[in-house]
Amino acid sequence: MRTDADGLGLVERGAVVARDGKIVHAGPEADLPTGLSGAVLVDCDGRWITPGLIDCHTHLVYAGNRANEFEMRLAGASYEEVARAGGGIVSSVRGVRAASEDQLIKESLPRLDALIAEGVTTVEVKSGYGLDATSEAKSLRAARRLGSERPVTIRTTFLGAHALPVEANGDKDAYIEQVANEMLPAIARDRLADAVDGFCEGIAFSPEQIARVFDAARALGLPVKLHADQLSDLGGAELAARYGALSADHLEHTSEAGAAAMAKSGTVATILPGAFYFIRETVKPPIDLFRQHKVPMALATDSNPGTSPLTSLLLTMNMGATLFSMTVEECLTGVTRNAAQALGLQDEVGTLEPGKWADLAIWDIERPAELVYRIGFNPLHARIWRGQ
Amino acid sequence: MRTDADGLGLVERGAVVARDGKIVHAGPEADLPTGLSGAVLVDCDGRWITPGLIDCHTHLVYAGNRANEFEMRLAGASYEEVARAGGGIVSSVRGVRAASEDQLIKESLPRLDALIAEGVTTVEVKSGYGLDATSEAKSLRAARRLGSERPVTIRTTFLGAHALPVEANGDKDAYIEQVANEMLPAIARDRLADAVDGFCEGIAFSPEQIARVFDAARALGLPVKLHADQLSDLGGAELAARYGALSADHLEHTSEAGAAAMAKSGTVATILPGAFYFIRETVKPPIDLFRQHKVPMALATDSNPGTSPLTSLLLTMNMGATLFSMTVEECLTGVTRNAAQALGLQDEVGTLEPGKWADLAIWDIERPAELVYRIGFNPLHARIWRGQ
Ligand SMILES: [Zn+2]
Ligand SMILES: [Zn+2]
Repeated sequence: MRTDADGLGLVERGAVVARDGKIVHAGPEADLPTGLSGAVLVDCDGRWITPGLIDCHTHLVYAGNRANEFEMRLAGASYEEVARAGGGIVSSVRGVRAASEDQLIKESLPRLDALIAEGVTTVEVKSGYGLDATSEAKSLRAARRLGSERPVTIRTTFLGAHALPVEANGDKDAYIEQVANEMLPAIARDRLADAVDGFCEGIAFSPEQIARVFDAARALGLPVKLHADQLSDLGGAELAARYGALSADHLEHTSEAGAAAMAKSGTVATILPGAFYFIRETVKPPIDLFRQHKVPMALATDSNPGTSPLTSLLLTMNMGATLFSMTVEECLTGVTRNAAQALGLQDEVGTLEPGKWADLAIWDIERPAELVYRIGFNPLHARIWRGQ
Repeated sequence: MRTDADGLGLVERGAVVARDGKIVHAGPEADLPTGLSGAVLVDCDGRWITPGLIDCHTHLVYAGNRANEFEMRLAGASYEEVARAGGGIVSSVRGVRAASEDQLIKESLPRLDALIAEGVTTVEVKSGYGLDATSEAKSLRAARRLGSERPVTIRTTFLGAHALPVEANGDKDAYIEQVANEMLPAIARDRLADAVDGFCEGIAFSPEQIARVFDAARALGLPVKLHADQLSDLGGAELAARYGALSADHLEHTSEAGAAAMAKSGTVATILPGAFYFIRETVKPPIDLFRQHKVPMALATDSNPGTSPLTSLLLTMNMGATLFSMTVEECLTGVTRNAAQALGLQDEVGTLEPGKWADLAIWDIERPAELVYRIGFNPLHARIWRGQ
């Protein structure tokens, strides 16, 4: 995979050379540069090397889980009954607020480790279960610290505009003012977030409310992304495009105008089949429109306790292919090159090219399609993060 | 879980005692028998213990894979184009015929290991990619040998009536005679199969042809099971019931009469959501009918290269819940107690009761529902097979 060419750019009998954690050569073994006599040689023995995988949309940091309400719903409980029993997003907010930063890290590490075990080298992590200044900052600090606990690149995203906390008493505008005027500036000052996200939906916030948060992000120099058009078309894709968002995510109900706007703004379409599968959605994202308008597509786990308790990026690729008929090439670029772009990291990771971090996954497979085809199987042989 | 009671029979602060590989006590710690002074104590530290999981329907032994045709189909190739490129079941038959027994074992072990890593202690393995006497026997010998390569119980099933080999030139009746009169007696003589299976479908064999094979199995004292009603209702469930089959499997198109017949004959309904998902089936198995008629339901991976390249029984449970709205209890009994019954092993494994093998899975979870709720995550802490 290269940034200046279509397709996977497969190289047979290839070699990758790294120095100080960065790639200095990637291409046919026959074209190896000279002057490598002091180098450590690692023979991959005919295995395939891909860029380390990138999970560009997760809500990985949370406390507790929601298996209880999952069980209740399967047993026939209504949403009201689940809510009365303390379920729904409020239970995750309660969990995050009550947890210490150390506890958040302890509970999140097994999820991160599951991703890492599949060759993931970069993970985006959102806040959004704190919903007050202290708890949002705590979540983002926990997310940052995950990157020192494990050899992995963590990118953090502030998602204060995820849901309305109960203490807001239904006043969405007032809460959004608090997000834009108080929480976000404090998060930016402490450099806790690499981007700002929102949930634009009838059950969450309106396009106008999200725009208020995006204006504040712009003023602080932070890039934005958006949970857009998941359950209905509120023009989320267009809104994201208008602000030059890195990505718009979900997109089940995006219109052709939305796809065209994203193409123009260079906004990545991040497809989240795990949530589609788990909540038994029936409207699929308009993959054909994204193809026609040449909108780059990424694939991510959306790992979260309520709508996508998924911690496998390999399975996410299979779901992209099986549920949405994405091709093998689209799935593989969706968790590498395009996922890097969705994080603004296209100059650092996502392809095997000189100057990028030597983040590699080495696989026991005969052809790359196997990474998409298999279900619940992990053929990772080894994983390299920044040359190690 | 007990055989004489409904529900999961959860025990908090429980203990399991085993001697010579068999359970001698399972119940509250407070009821521990006396005379255990010489016993080795393993403190599970508050974790949950379940019976070792049972995958009661797999085609795990094969050579090569079919990622190539998966990729072609996603890129828009028709079934004819795939077939012209050598794809479809004939490619698996070619692979198995060309492979040595050792090669089959080598290629199948990573799949078996993926199951074992999730706490699976019993696996059924079918032949059906050989389709001649030599290759079917080779597959079953390889399957048996998997059980000596790893600490796991393997049950083998002869599936000569899986598909028509090309050399039969379209003569299904003649091939079925060969299966019933030649292949099956030889397999039985060498004790290579614990059961006999068939594929009853328009694209495979008719009920009359399957009955021919079942008559031969009955004469040899071998129990039967059936791939039934997957793509259409040919009365497969009724046929299976008429022969007192251990299980009928798939069952997307089974009628109420079929469910009633299965209930009467004690035939387990083995639900295979992986194949439903992978081939994008839309008609779901009639779970409600099985509930109403009290047909025990099992869940299995159907692990195979063409329609279910799935090697995760945990994910299979999640698919049962997500795709078919099976309850947590149905999913958990489906991979333990009812899966044991589908293999005729209900007196040996599948529950934690005195006299059964001490096959245990020990989980890092707070409640059993988590085993069904999570997607692509493996919380196994330890696995015990026959007391070890
Ligand atoms: Zn999300
Ligand atoms: Zn099968």
